[in-house]
Amino acid sequence: MNQERKPLLAITMGDASGSGPEIIAKALAEKEISAICRPLVIGDADIMREALKLTGVPGKVRAIDDVSNAEFQGGIIEVVDLDNIDPDKLVRGRVSLMAGKAAYEYITLATDLTLAGRCDALVTSAINKEALNKAGYHYDGHTGLLTELCGASDVAMMLVAGKLRVSHVSTHLPLRQALDLVRPERILTVLRLTNDAVREMGIDQPRLAVAGLNPHAGEDGLFGDEDEEYIKPAIDEARRQGLNVMDRPLPPDTIFFRTSEGQFDAAVAMYHDQGHIAAKMLGIWLGVNVTLGLPIIRTSVEHGTNFGKAGKGTADPRSLIEAIKLAVVVCENRRRASRCR
Amino acid sequence: MNQERKPLLAITMGDASGSGPEIIAKALAEKEISAICRPLVIGDADIMREALKLTGVPGKVRAIDDVSNAEFQGGIIEVVDLDNIDPDKLVRGRVSLMAGKAAYEYITLATDLTLAGRCDALVTSAINKEALNKAGYHYDGHTGLLTELCGASDVAMMLVAGKLRVSHVSTHLPLRQALDLVRPERILTVLRLTNDAVREMGIDQPRLAVAGLNPHAGEDGLFGDEDEEYIKPAIDEARRQGLNVMDRPLPPDTIFFRTSEGQFDAAVAMYHDQGHIAAKMLGIWLGVNVTLGLPIIRTSVEHGTNFGKAGKGTADPRSLIEAIKLAVVVCENRRRASRCR
Repeated sequence: MNQERKPLLAITMGDASGSGPEIIAKALAEKEISAICRPLVIGDADIMREALKLTGVPGKVRAIDDVSNAEFQGGIIEVVDLDNIDPDKLVRGRVSLMAGKAAYEYITLATDLTLAGRCDALVTSAINKEALNKAGYHYDGHTGLLTELCGASDVAMMLVAGKLRVSHVSTHLPLRQALDLVRPERILTVLRLTNDAVREMGIDQPRLAVAGLNPHAGEDGLFGDEDEEYIKPAIDEARRQGLNVMDRPLPPDTIFFRTSEGQFDAAVAMYHDQGHIAAKMLGIWLGVNVTLGLPIIRTSVEHGTNFGKAGKGTADPRSLIEAIKLAVVVCENRRRASRCR
Repeated sequence: MNQERKPLLAITMGDASGSGPEIIAKALAEKEISAICRPLVIGDADIMREALKLTGVPGKVRAIDDVSNAEFQGGIIEVVDLDNIDPDKLVRGRVSLMAGKAAYEYITLATDLTLAGRCDALVTSAINKEALNKAGYHYDGHTGLLTELCGASDVAMMLVAGKLRVSHVSTHLPLRQALDLVRPERILTVLRLTNDAVREMGIDQPRLAVAGLNPHAGEDGLFGDEDEEYIKPAIDEARRQGLNVMDRPLPPDTIFFRTSEGQFDAAVAMYHDQGHIAAKMLGIWLGVNVTLGLPIIRTSVEHGTNFGKAGKGTADPRSLIEAIKLAVVVCENRRRASRCR
């Protein structure tokens, strides 16, 4: 592929105390990654240099101060260097205000660059919520922060693992509170966002399915009535609008297995753990988190900072590799669609 | 193994309109099954003869009227024949009162035989709840019926799939109602039942873990307080009583994957779908359902009647095969334990 035509990805370094920098070092060394994109790390150049040493990955780090200076030569990790971590003060595997503040700064810059069209997509590494809080930034994670930075309104979290794509009606809420969000309007919004996202992942007429809330999707009202009262009407309306959705809420215990086997292109989960348990049963180090409804393309590792492996060079890079590959697919489909308009 | 020493299993035929009879025909033809147990079908001999034809499994059916007449010769399926299905009236794949009533009669007889010690364990095939209801028996499935027949009080459902063993604080209830059952006393009961069951499955000092209720197990109260208020105290008490339980409720989205990888011998789920989604992601045709807390040993297929495949000879027997193997393991461990007393 022509170098210029490869999508330019802003990859945030995440929390420097975690295994993010090491995972990036490993992922960017993969030939399948350099073959498909121009990766740009938004982070701290010294920390990325240490990550190369810790992982034993050959290569160099080149610090730049602006995207325009990136050269994207093989074997060189280019870092827009915010120089906001003091390596002597960094303790790997421990929550720190310094790393929390730095992680916030990577996200805001990377988001700005992507919103401005100077990067094609945003790929994020794991952050530590406690560190973010210590630094004075109170968000429930990336999604809330990105929603605010992008001025978005209706967003949804999708997890992608193998053939399983699952988007969520709600995420970081007490389960009892999440039950109250199982309402037709929100479910319809998530269905539409899911349909759009799967199309941008390259599937023209996505076959969608919606999980029930109760055991066996309520079994005709025997085990709860939300399935008939709130979920079914959302499905009916989505079908009226032309979406290819299974006509009833499906039993939560089998819908995700069926989706992972390819029976549907995506499923909608009613709450965080419905979808997350399913996705993580396929392996906790290989899933990708995608935010639907932002004006920019954003994918992310699905796992946390993995403090336990930080500094050891042994963290598993598969989730980041998949996140990068998925961002590239969406970039290209969006580009293709815009040419067709 | 000496024929006499092999556990004698009462295997119910389940709903005759479903694929139960065909699955039994296939499972009992497996050498690994005849090598470890003396299987006795409690059902209808004519239907079992048809099942042999439908599946193409070689062998014969021998109708008997009492356990004492069973001879357990190779290649012969022995059926305690209740002669309660009219083959000419049976429509496969359709709910029927006749099949519902018959299925009920298989369960009551098989339970009585096992309670009386004339069989060593009960292994059940799938029933259809609607058919059971049509016949005038109003239960939420096997578990409620068996609890009543056995006069049991505290029971729990465990699913076993590969290395994953997961028991449930509640099962067939609206999710909103299930939240109210997440209380220390019930969680402790399920932990003790789980510990006993895993020991009888051959693991001396079971390593147990308990799922939280909320996303990330509440993340220190950020997303709900049941994890700290109700689940943690149950864990503390279980540890005081000597159980080897992880000291905190674990994030629901990773605990089951970790258990399936062998990090724990069993996990406790807070509601039906938490455990069921996890178990069924490992394959919906191979899990086993075990009822903990009954005076008898009872295992079951994890799936339903599979009306869609009934009469086609193509239903997958793996779940029943695993259910039989697990019943045998528990029989032998119980026998061994009683010798040591």
